[in-house]
Amino acid sequence: MELSALPGFRDFYPEDAARRDFIFMRWRETARRYGFAPYDSPPLENIELYRRKSGDELIGQIYGFTDKGGREIALRPEMTPSLARMIASGGQSLPKPVKWFSIPQLFRYERQQRGRLREHFQLNCDILGETGVAADVELVALLVDCLCAFGLTESDFRVRVSDRPLLGALIAAVGLSDPAQHAVVFAAIDKLTREPAENVKRRMVEGGIVSSQADQILGLFQKKGLPEIASEYDASPAVCERVLLLQRFFGMIEAMGLQGYAEFDLTVVRGLAYYTGIVFEAFDRKGKFRAISGGGRYDQLVRTIGGVDMPALGFGMGDVVLGELLTDRGLWPTDLQPRTDVYLILVHESLRTPLLSLAHQLRSAGLSVDYGFTESAVGKQFKTASQRGVRFAVILGPEEWQRHAVKLKNLESREETEVGVEKLQERLLETLKKG
Amino acid sequence: MELSALPGFRDFYPEDAARRDFIFMRWRETARRYGFAPYDSPPLENIELYRRKSGDELIGQIYGFTDKGGREIALRPEMTPSLARMIASGGQSLPKPVKWFSIPQLFRYERQQRGRLREHFQLNCDILGETGVAADVELVALLVDCLCAFGLTESDFRVRVSDRPLLGALIAAVGLSDPAQHAVVFAAIDKLTREPAENVKRRMVEGGIVSSQADQILGLFQKKGLPEIASEYDASPAVCERVLLLQRFFGMIEAMGLQGYAEFDLTVVRGLAYYTGIVFEAFDRKGKFRAISGGGRYDQLVRTIGGVDMPALGFGMGDVVLGELLTDRGLWPTDLQPRTDVYLILVHESLRTPLLSLAHQLRSAGLSVDYGFTESAVGKQFKTASQRGVRFAVILGPEEWQRHAVKLKNLESREETEVGVEKLQERLLETLKKG
Repeated sequence: MELSALPGFRDFYPEDAARRDFIFMRWRETARRYGFAPYDSPPLENIELYRRKSGDELIGQIYGFTDKGGREIALRPEMTPSLARMIASGGQSLPKPVKWFSIPQLFRYERQQRGRLREHFQLNCDILGETGVAADVELVALLVDCLCAFGLTESDFRVRVSDRPLLGALIAAVGLSDPAQHAVVFAAIDKLTREPAENVKRRMVEGGIVSSQADQILGLFQKKGLPEIASEYDASPAVCERVLLLQRFFGMIEAMGLQGYAEFDLTVVRGLAYYTGIVFEAFDRKGKFRAISGGGRYDQLVRTIGGVDMPALGFGMGDVVLGELLTDRGLWPTDLQPRTDVYLILVHESLRTPLLSLAHQLRSAGLSVDYGFTESAVGKQFKTASQRGVRFAVILGPEEWQRHAVKLKNLESREETEVGVEKLQERLLETLKKG
Repeated sequence: MELSALPGFRDFYPEDAARRDFIFMRWRETARRYGFAPYDSPPLENIELYRRKSGDELIGQIYGFTDKGGREIALRPEMTPSLARMIASGGQSLPKPVKWFSIPQLFRYERQQRGRLREHFQLNCDILGETGVAADVELVALLVDCLCAFGLTESDFRVRVSDRPLLGALIAAVGLSDPAQHAVVFAAIDKLTREPAENVKRRMVEGGIVSSQADQILGLFQKKGLPEIASEYDASPAVCERVLLLQRFFGMIEAMGLQGYAEFDLTVVRGLAYYTGIVFEAFDRKGKFRAISGGGRYDQLVRTIGGVDMPALGFGMGDVVLGELLTDRGLWPTDLQPRTDVYLILVHESLRTPLLSLAHQLRSAGLSVDYGFTESAVGKQFKTASQRGVRFAVILGPEEWQRHAVKLKNLESREETEVGVEKLQERLLETLKKG
């Protein structure tokens, strides 16, 4: 029988679980500092939820099946549709803006490739009920701090920020007004960081864009930044409006002291069609990994899914790429697995009753305590304690026990003292508190 | 479109998520005190894993499907088979005993009944690689403390302990030696706390047990306890051996001071066929709920699943019954949702830049900070802060700002003082530390 997990799925042995829990802990702690509240939804949803959002185009990658009741079920491929469903269903009475986060496990069913997983965990942070650009700033700042919480700095990553309506207005200014043409251009530009410009142009031309217009569009990406774009397209009120909005956005990012972390980059499109405003992606500055995080504003989705008007924006950040990045930068803490405080060592089996009593007493005081379940040599018990990185050994020997005492040994400094049993708990708590 | 979760699945709005996370936190903290390390496995497994453990008998309740690659997949209905798979596959090199815990979400597909869920979260704690009864004691003590951690006491619950080999030896002493007869008796006795004795007898007789023997077996459950059983069946070495083992078990439970939490109860069988030793269930003493927790020794399972010899024992404790019990006893803390430390109040929009700077500075110092994203009246901002239970308001007004100062208002005591901006962070950290 196959003893490994299903292809594309991970088992978490304690060392892996400790790393995963470390990531979750840092994410939760950062979300808390930003006043975000936790939520969750089931890992299974009616597949209709994703059809309603994206049409049939993305259904192919969904890990889906038909259940015994004949329902078409999906293992959730992303969290946002479930969030939109929850908000449309029960969240309307919540005071706005809603600031929520979650760390769901997400699933997809792709042809199996080397190292490609079919699941990952993803931090999702969303703000709902707020149209102002200050919410976009808040979200990008949270994204930045969710990475800085691991010791990553502006020399490690950058958030590239663009704006869908600005790109739309620029395409319109070039002379393309048909939404179908916009879709062709968006899809082509989405490849711009991964493919040579000539390929991107060919994609546009094959999609029905005139060659000279395709060149003009590619020219947009040679611009040095927002001021240059604004001065060249100052005849378009739509362009000017979105440039001003982005300038306010970057002004507020600077007010937070985060200007080293975010930059304008018109090539950021974000594949998903549902974005309606500012969009962003966080990238490793060495360019070694896929995007670390991505998101943006999706003001129509809650209405599409649940018929409720609700502006919204959010981002997702997966545990896999982040974990690779932390490994690459050597940023995993060395001591992730919690250390046991005390190992009780039994010199003679006749003292098992007081050992059990002591174990339970120390545990009730909040200490983590371990001991051997069967009789074994004292040396072997010490070896077990050392291998497991325990801090203190408490040795129960018949001689000391007659004096109601035990030996307390610091397994790092090798210091050993005799302590009265009634003083032991206090002594351990004091010493552990110090260091 | 349906806006609720799939039937039998729960959405977790922030209040629900806070309760769930509270349960998880207490469980984790208790497992840590006992030196248990976290692990996890995928929520999907090859259905063969459960066939191998239980035959086809339990497959009917599994939430299963065929994936796009033609594999028969199960949403995990329990954690132990995945644990056995992981141990057989990669855990052989781990130092023994292995003490691991996990909090998986588990799934089953039953006909939908009122209030019956198709998923729950379950704490799983297991010890592997240890045959001695001290491990059984450790596990039951951990179970007890996993409930005491919520403020439950010996007047709220009790752990009923029995022993499969003892029951087997008693049935044999009555004259039944065929394993098929044992299976009939075990299945019948499993109903003893829910059905009248005559029904249980009928189940045995219908299963081929002679009426007088069925009476003798039912008579076992009239015995007052281990000494009475031992004296009546002292001709059976197997009975005596297991009685002695149970007496050692209860002696060690008493050494830990937990004698008020555990009692011998021969009616505890635990439905699952794979238990091989001591078994136990935790029950609400008022008898209002289903079992809170259950487990026991399963020394053969790792071999059955993975061909590796590995004695093992464990228990599961679900979040749903425990949550009902905490509600019934009024033991939920009132202040589960984390409170935001500071709400920044903007007297005039022109001060948004310093507000953003201050927000990021205070968050970097570890404080949780919130503020409004769009201009609104000061009174409305105060109202939002109060509604959300924020501790402190920091008011940025043009007048104070000229003196590089802000007003700091304690939203509980209504006390208000002016504080220099450079002193604010220190003052807030000090005050929050105090209370």
